[in-house]
Amino acid sequence: MTTNQQVVINSLPQGKLATTDYRLEEHPVETPAAGQALCRTIAFAITAGTRAGLQGSASYAGAPRSGIVMNGTGVAEVVDSSADGFAAGDLVLGPTGWQQYATLDGKALTKIPAGDDPVDYLGPLGVNGLTAYFGLFDVGNPQPGETVLVSAAAGSVGHLVGQMARLRGAQSVGISGSDRKCDVLTRDLGFAAAANYREDNFREALKAACPNGVDVYFDNTGGDILGAALFRMNIGGRIACCGVVSQYDTDSPAPGPKGIPGLLVNKRLTMRGFLVFDFADRYAAARDEIRGWLASGDLRSLTDEVQGLDKAPEAFVDLLSGGNTGTRVVRLA
Amino acid sequence: MTTNQQVVINSLPQGKLATTDYRLEEHPVETPAAGQALCRTIAFAITAGTRAGLQGSASYAGAPRSGIVMNGTGVAEVVDSSADGFAAGDLVLGPTGWQQYATLDGKALTKIPAGDDPVDYLGPLGVNGLTAYFGLFDVGNPQPGETVLVSAAAGSVGHLVGQMARLRGAQSVGISGSDRKCDVLTRDLGFAAAANYREDNFREALKAACPNGVDVYFDNTGGDILGAALFRMNIGGRIACCGVVSQYDTDSPAPGPKGIPGLLVNKRLTMRGFLVFDFADRYAAARDEIRGWLASGDLRSLTDEVQGLDKAPEAFVDLLSGGNTGTRVVRLA
Repeated sequence: MTTNQQVVINSLPQGKLATTDYRLEEHPVETPAAGQALCRTIAFAITAGTRAGLQGSASYAGAPRSGIVMNGTGVAEVVDSSADGFAAGDLVLGPTGWQQYATLDGKALTKIPAGDDPVDYLGPLGVNGLTAYFGLFDVGNPQPGETVLVSAAAGSVGHLVGQMARLRGAQSVGISGSDRKCDVLTRDLGFAAAANYREDNFREALKAACPNGVDVYFDNTGGDILGAALFRMNIGGRIACCGVVSQYDTDSPAPGPKGIPGLLVNKRLTMRGFLVFDFADRYAAARDEIRGWLASGDLRSLTDEVQGLDKAPEAFVDLLSGGNTGTRVVRLA
Repeated sequence: MTTNQQVVINSLPQGKLATTDYRLEEHPVETPAAGQALCRTIAFAITAGTRAGLQGSASYAGAPRSGIVMNGTGVAEVVDSSADGFAAGDLVLGPTGWQQYATLDGKALTKIPAGDDPVDYLGPLGVNGLTAYFGLFDVGNPQPGETVLVSAAAGSVGHLVGQMARLRGAQSVGISGSDRKCDVLTRDLGFAAAANYREDNFREALKAACPNGVDVYFDNTGGDILGAALFRMNIGGRIACCGVVSQYDTDSPAPGPKGIPGLLVNKRLTMRGFLVFDFADRYAAARDEIRGWLASGDLRSLTDEVQGLDKAPEAFVDLLSGGNTGTRVVRLA
């Protein structure tokens, strides 16, 4: 009988997430029921948004609890299928969670076409890439020549947002947490400028990085960074609210920034929250466009890989303190 | 020579506004230059938004200073004109300020058609009514059967918003600061329900007042009331940010409410700030529709009149503590 190694929630985090909030367990692999497929995980992504789910409330992902497998999106190979349309050997994207094997409903799976790199489905062709795409183009709606500011700009979504903005003729400015990551943005990914929010003079650096102000702000962080960005917005600017990473790794979220709603009124700003799932009927067309950019080299996907399921908790803790550059992927042995 | 009595800013307020922040002065009336008209003020409106201007920064109205006439919108009779299109005897709407006579550029004046009540131009046919109209219909965009929540609901803009929402087939719910004002909303103005934010159980009362949640929130207050409203919003809801009266009468504005931007993301909410001046090219059509509602009795304008220029400072201080029901108008003797 095949064993399924899993990373299970040990305890809901008190304050900051710790590796001891997880434990490893081994269980027998489940046989797929009718409509299900047994999937062997190849790799999964670790994203900051799942930390919000561990706060136990107010998340669209549902309440977590001790003893369940940590949730996450992965790519996998089907090894046994009772689901229509899926056969052993198929590569799929799905909610594998942090485990070697996942038994999943066929309708939760997306088949990965032959020729595509499955790990791209954790990045530019997956939820991260689609989030960047719809949040930027549908919510932010940048016009050629405008300035697009993005926070967590070296992160899984942010590094794609800045590049996509450039592909539409806008200037990209990134906010990141280290000079090294800022260098990656401007040197490797075509950002016009970048500012390190951990510097004492961050607000001045941000102002200097956006000499024409900001027309679209793609907000992955909320908190003080949102507060600083508000003061740089141009009249009529749009803020695409994607995530609140500054408030995830805590059990006492801070109040909202000053200037809300006062600056929204004075500058006629629009802030709009979105979830990528609301755009599901347009995923295929978006993937076609993104696939084209990957093929031409216009869009670069940065991944930050960790090897081994047991390294996932440490990789998540590190990600929450800004340790990743690009999409953090855990690859299983 | 005719004397012009004026209410002048004596000092920028420290903390809460006080009547001693104003003084009365008398000056000779100015003769209008080419393009100007000399206007005798009949009445002016006192609105909470002008308190923001006294904070000395971050306002679209420009920075105030000691020694200038307090700004405000009034209705007046032209007594002498060197402005094309205006003649003695015309009734006009314009930025009279708090004074008996204002010498104003013709292009700052709107002529009041014969047959209209000039005081309606300080309420439903003026900035307040247009703010309610465009903020509700263009920014909030309520659909029939939806719930529209409005704060400062017994105020100059709010009492019109709730009635206009009802005229478009939505349910109106008001937030106000006294049981007496809540009664006016539900008994006299057709609001479906109202909640008093000064009650200890305000959040529960608000929940009970909005059994189907809130689709459009017209925010005149910001602060804690905005925070409470965020938790009542339905998925896809719209927040029209009109004003921030909770933060005007202070020199240390509070941080924004918790839940921004987190709740915006989870509920896919849109918050949009607006200024009525951006809709100036559509004022005439809006006034036609509002005039029709006034004539048919479908829209009621509440005014809260004070007699005498010297009473204006006290009327403003009282308004900022919620003393008015409807549009506060100062009528000159």
